[in-house]
Amino acid sequence: MKMLGVLGGMGPLASAEFMRQLTLLTPAERDQDHIPTILWSDPRVPDRTAARVSGGEDPLPALVRGIRGLEAAGCGAIVIPCNTAHGWYEGMRAATDLPILHIVDAAAAELRRQGVTEGPIGLMGTTGTLAMRLYQDRLGIECLTPDAETQERLVMPCVGLVKANRIAEAYAPLAEVAQGLRARGAKAVVLGCTEIPLGIAAGPTLDFPVIDTIAALARAAILWARE
Amino acid sequence: MKMLGVLGGMGPLASAEFMRQLTLLTPAERDQDHIPTILWSDPRVPDRTAARVSGGEDPLPALVRGIRGLEAAGCGAIVIPCNTAHGWYEGMRAATDLPILHIVDAAAAELRRQGVTEGPIGLMGTTGTLAMRLYQDRLGIECLTPDAETQERLVMPCVGLVKANRIAEAYAPLAEVAQGLRARGAKAVVLGCTEIPLGIAAGPTLDFPVIDTIAALARAAILWARE
Repeated sequence: MKMLGVLGGMGPLASAEFMRQLTLLTPAERDQDHIPTILWSDPRVPDRTAARVSGGEDPLPALVRGIRGLEAAGCGAIVIPCNTAHGWYEGMRAATDLPILHIVDAAAAELRRQGVTEGPIGLMGTTGTLAMRLYQDRLGIECLTPDAETQERLVMPCVGLVKANRIAEAYAPLAEVAQGLRARGAKAVVLGCTEIPLGIAAGPTLDFPVIDTIAALARAAILWARE
Repeated sequence: MKMLGVLGGMGPLASAEFMRQLTLLTPAERDQDHIPTILWSDPRVPDRTAARVSGGEDPLPALVRGIRGLEAAGCGAIVIPCNTAHGWYEGMRAATDLPILHIVDAAAAELRRQGVTEGPIGLMGTTGTLAMRLYQDRLGIECLTPDAETQERLVMPCVGLVKANRIAEAYAPLAEVAQGLRARGAKAVVLGCTEIPLGIAAGPTLDFPVIDTIAALARAAILWARE
């Protein structure tokens, strides 16, 4: 049976939720039916948005250290439940022979699974993810994003709240941003930062399609394990 | 910063919940304040109760393989979010120089933290855990356990339901068993199988003290990380 490697800790609650979704979405009758998985949860990886937008420390060396650990453990593929870290995807790919399942491809598959085949879609993510155009350039669908003021006033503080275990407080501002994108014509809203679905899950369900990138990545991992 | 090793996958949902509790119980303002952790989630470890009560395959070799992986990753201590696996505690301890934080000691600390200083207490666990007297012989408090018929008719099927992702169905039978122990005079009920707190969390909160051994083990790990 193939062993999955999870390069995590960015943040650690999103990694725990990834493990939960991976388990709950796997058809299983007993422990032995579940997917063997190594989670390398290293929350010390330097902040990805700070590295991209304000000259913070480069996270790539820490990311590659985690990949080396997952290789040594015998993993056959890697997933990274952190959208912003995918800004270093090419650097990580150059450092390993293992396949790295891209979270934007997982989100694209989830959009198709939910029947969303055309844009525009709404995109929520860290300032780093939006600045690096991780979704806009890979998805091939028009993406509506929050304006810069909304991004800094509502989205980024909520990402921080979830990382600080203050999840319930993150719901209302995040829901407001998602509803704003919906009002601008988004067919669905991609929660393109793994802290955001945690905040959105802490309150009433939104009444339009949203893409949980933690669950989407878990589905991609399950497909890989069954191949 | 010390790195924690989690020997998990027994079952995988309990391991995910351990990672969630570890994160939520850690005082943190940002990713970098959380505890670096490697989760070795190997659900292929042979069934622990079957090994003890019906001649199933010995799980010790698989447990030691996981310990080797956690040693190689650089972990400084090991926790095992599976009560029944602690039946092989001495064998594991003989196989590694790393400290293994014992889940029964974590439950004892949690009983003290909740102000429960005398028995009797109620004890719910797998048939293997009860047969090996993991709690009765280590806790030094009188333990009331379900009768054999209740154990096989209600407790063990619910452990299986959680491992099969049918968590909501496990609530009512598990709550009935806990209430039965309470009615027999238990000052608190120890949920001494890591599937049981998952089932008990799926319905209304019980109106007497319960010891969640997943959260108790997370607290023990946080204390170790801060030492």
